[in-house]
Amino acid sequence: MNLDEARDLFSSQWREMSLLDSTSALLGWDEQVMMPSGGSAWRASQNSQLARLSHAILIDPRLGEALMLLGTSPDPILAAHAREGLRRHLRAVKLSPALVTEMAEVCSLAQPEWRKARQESDHSRFAPWLERIIRLKRAEADSVGWTNHPYDALIDEYEPGTTTQSVRTLFEDLAPALSALAARRADEHPLAEPAGNYPVEDQKKFGEMASRAIGFNFESGRLDVSTHPFCSGVAPGDCRLTTRYNSHGFVESFFGVLHETGHGLYEQGLPDSFDGLPLGQAASLGIHESQSRLWENQVGRSRAYWSFWFPIAKAFFPGPLHNVDLDQFLRTLHRAKPGFIRVEADETTYNLHIVLRFGIETALLSGDLTVAQLPIAWNERFECLMGLKVPDDRRGYLQDVHWSGGGLGYFPTYTLGNLYAAQFIAAARRDLPNLDSDLARGDSASLLGWLRSHIHSKGRMLRPEALCIEATGEAPTPHYLLQHLESLIPGNA
Amino acid sequence: MNLDEARDLFSSQWREMSLLDSTSALLGWDEQVMMPSGGSAWRASQNSQLARLSHAILIDPRLGEALMLLGTSPDPILAAHAREGLRRHLRAVKLSPALVTEMAEVCSLAQPEWRKARQESDHSRFAPWLERIIRLKRAEADSVGWTNHPYDALIDEYEPGTTTQSVRTLFEDLAPALSALAARRADEHPLAEPAGNYPVEDQKKFGEMASRAIGFNFESGRLDVSTHPFCSGVAPGDCRLTTRYNSHGFVESFFGVLHETGHGLYEQGLPDSFDGLPLGQAASLGIHESQSRLWENQVGRSRAYWSFWFPIAKAFFPGPLHNVDLDQFLRTLHRAKPGFIRVEADETTYNLHIVLRFGIETALLSGDLTVAQLPIAWNERFECLMGLKVPDDRRGYLQDVHWSGGGLGYFPTYTLGNLYAAQFIAAARRDLPNLDSDLARGDSASLLGWLRSHIHSKGRMLRPEALCIEATGEAPTPHYLLQHLESLIPGNA
Repeated sequence: MNLDEARDLFSSQWREMSLLDSTSALLGWDEQVMMPSGGSAWRASQNSQLARLSHAILIDPRLGEALMLLGTSPDPILAAHAREGLRRHLRAVKLSPALVTEMAEVCSLAQPEWRKARQESDHSRFAPWLERIIRLKRAEADSVGWTNHPYDALIDEYEPGTTTQSVRTLFEDLAPALSALAARRADEHPLAEPAGNYPVEDQKKFGEMASRAIGFNFESGRLDVSTHPFCSGVAPGDCRLTTRYNSHGFVESFFGVLHETGHGLYEQGLPDSFDGLPLGQAASLGIHESQSRLWENQVGRSRAYWSFWFPIAKAFFPGPLHNVDLDQFLRTLHRAKPGFIRVEADETTYNLHIVLRFGIETALLSGDLTVAQLPIAWNERFECLMGLKVPDDRRGYLQDVHWSGGGLGYFPTYTLGNLYAAQFIAAARRDLPNLDSDLARGDSASLLGWLRSHIHSKGRMLRPEALCIEATGEAPTPHYLLQHLESLIPGNA
Repeated sequence: MNLDEARDLFSSQWREMSLLDSTSALLGWDEQVMMPSGGSAWRASQNSQLARLSHAILIDPRLGEALMLLGTSPDPILAAHAREGLRRHLRAVKLSPALVTEMAEVCSLAQPEWRKARQESDHSRFAPWLERIIRLKRAEADSVGWTNHPYDALIDEYEPGTTTQSVRTLFEDLAPALSALAARRADEHPLAEPAGNYPVEDQKKFGEMASRAIGFNFESGRLDVSTHPFCSGVAPGDCRLTTRYNSHGFVESFFGVLHETGHGLYEQGLPDSFDGLPLGQAASLGIHESQSRLWENQVGRSRAYWSFWFPIAKAFFPGPLHNVDLDQFLRTLHRAKPGFIRVEADETTYNLHIVLRFGIETALLSGDLTVAQLPIAWNERFECLMGLKVPDDRRGYLQDVHWSGGGLGYFPTYTLGNLYAAQFIAAARRDLPNLDSDLARGDSASLLGWLRSHIHSKGRMLRPEALCIEATGEAPTPHYLLQHLESLIPGNA
């Protein structure tokens, strides 16, 4: 195979795989947003067919050979595609078909078991499944290969190049500072969202207006409803967001929209020339999450943002917001109150939930912690971080879906996203001295421009840490996140 | 290959193909109902990938060998699957890849040309494309093989076993009778739907209620909006209907729902044991259309049906329907007034549009008519059938999308559907003497039961004509359709 042949083989085969993967993505979106329940059995077969066809392309030795060759190409873009493509190829070929099949089977059986176990707060029901999953994930890590910690092999799938040690170092700085912040705010009485009726149709209009205003292109995207909000970049030119509505408040749906729009802006900002190629995707899940958290928290909970948008919110919901002023409204957005459930947590305590999970899952994987010891270990560590006694496993380790689906190594990306988001906007603010006055006029074009040129347009050219250094001049640091969380304390803004 | 091996190969490969085809169907539904315009380029590549993968399975010689063998199976169901599977396999292998590719290319280029030509009523723009398409369809017919008329090879794809001669015979009885009926009604002044505001949300609720009432299962289906209403049985357990709304009337959306629900009931009534297998589909397009027309026209325009539903319509739309009585409302549904546009035609004159197209397309295919002669031939024949002079090609032969997409041989299935629908309900009425009083109580369960057992549950076991004979005791005849159309004349009901 010469370089030209390698390039032809690579581009045609990778495109074939990308087409299949985007079809899978559409099926996944449809399943959560549209599909009637009667379609689920057949859909499962469609999903596994597409996964099988895509996997067969990825592990083709001829593709591997082509990628090896192209890694030596003098064209730096092509070489980078090849490097990223080879990374995925090698990971896939290292996993035996038996392991992949067993993992898929165990996870699909474990998920309903987890659901019941959570409902009944029943550790003994889920424990044997989790043990099997940990064993399989350990086998996966050993197959992929690792030097310092087996968790390195897992986190690398979500956050390429990031190690257990680097996350541990960041979290060791972060955790005590977060606990201290939460403790300082323990006596506050947070305001609740004003009671009243918030018509869903108005929430839809308002959310879509806000999404469009920060740059989401509805010619290449949609906004729908699902039980759990998500963003799916189903294909080039087709990015789909969801949120969920309740008529007792608009904050949940609105921040759902802002969060998913942040993901969507990243997807829509990936370079067209990378479409269907290895670099045509986010740098990592953590960087992806940084984009959603940036718009949701850094922009969307700021005084500047709401000085423009709060009057509009009042026009949409004149009843409940009639007697509410901007300061009161911001206080409802800036609470910091420990609670048991991660997905209901505020910005400050949220990251403590992640620190906890990271510590637990690394220990489970290394064998330092057994599944039998898990509930006690979780609850002790939770009390130490949050100052609360976990009443049952339903509100303890059984609350999250991730492990039952084999998603070990995923949790840190949430806090990395928060940390990157704070670091990115601090850098943007240095480059754009008028940013806050722009936001206060409802204008976020300069910020989007900054993200487009420093983050989105890079696709997967750079590893997260390198991208962070190039965009901000610094390696990832908890400094900016802590500074931001500090600013949320009433009176500090 | 022995019988067991043949059965294994057949069932695994046919299932693979069905999974791919149902994924294609979902993509097609999504494209018309959900996809943002930015996704169209990528979607075209997804569609052609899936078509290619599915075609490769269908033409596999090993599959052909297995199907041949299974045709000799002592299991009559398996032998019938094999017969139907072999029919599709043989048709596909007879078409050269070059012809298939050229057809796909020419049609995808011809469609936008047709759209512009229609807009500008410009025969000269579309003529060269239509000439190419006719030439390719003739080549297709010659490849597939035919004895009496090349059109036989095309209609067979939509209406298996039906011949040009059998359609011609039916239409030769039908056409003069329809023209005479239309002429007798020429002096009537049809009532228009009462003017007023019909809120779209209320139309949605009413349409869904009506669809559910005649048996559509929303656990295994949905109802959405698209520019052109359609029904897609995207997968077992997942059948999707669409309609379109305008706030000036509910009749368009409502009959759209009834029509598509008719298709949907057929899809939902196909036997589960045939899922993903050759017999797990409608007997033909004409039989499919009979189900939509039966619910739309035979049931949905009947006095019995509206004696139950009209009070409900009045409750939904009290403003515009306030002073309207049942007789007046039925007169708006029973008009017979020639017009230029097929899709706007009433029940009576609709079939004259089809008679015209059938005559034209058989002549184009045999070479008795050239594309250059087409506009004049169309307009002369139209005037002769309908008594109206066609003012321009936009309202003449350029009005329909079918030919630009290669759909020659499709049109007769619409009138066959009308004819089967009238014949089926006449047979059902003989078997169910209380049918009309049931309908007048809002109960159509007995009719659905009759259709389930005589039509739906057969899947593709029988050819349309055999199915018709088995269900009604007679070969297809225009008698019942004419009887029905006669009954629509005011005073005849």
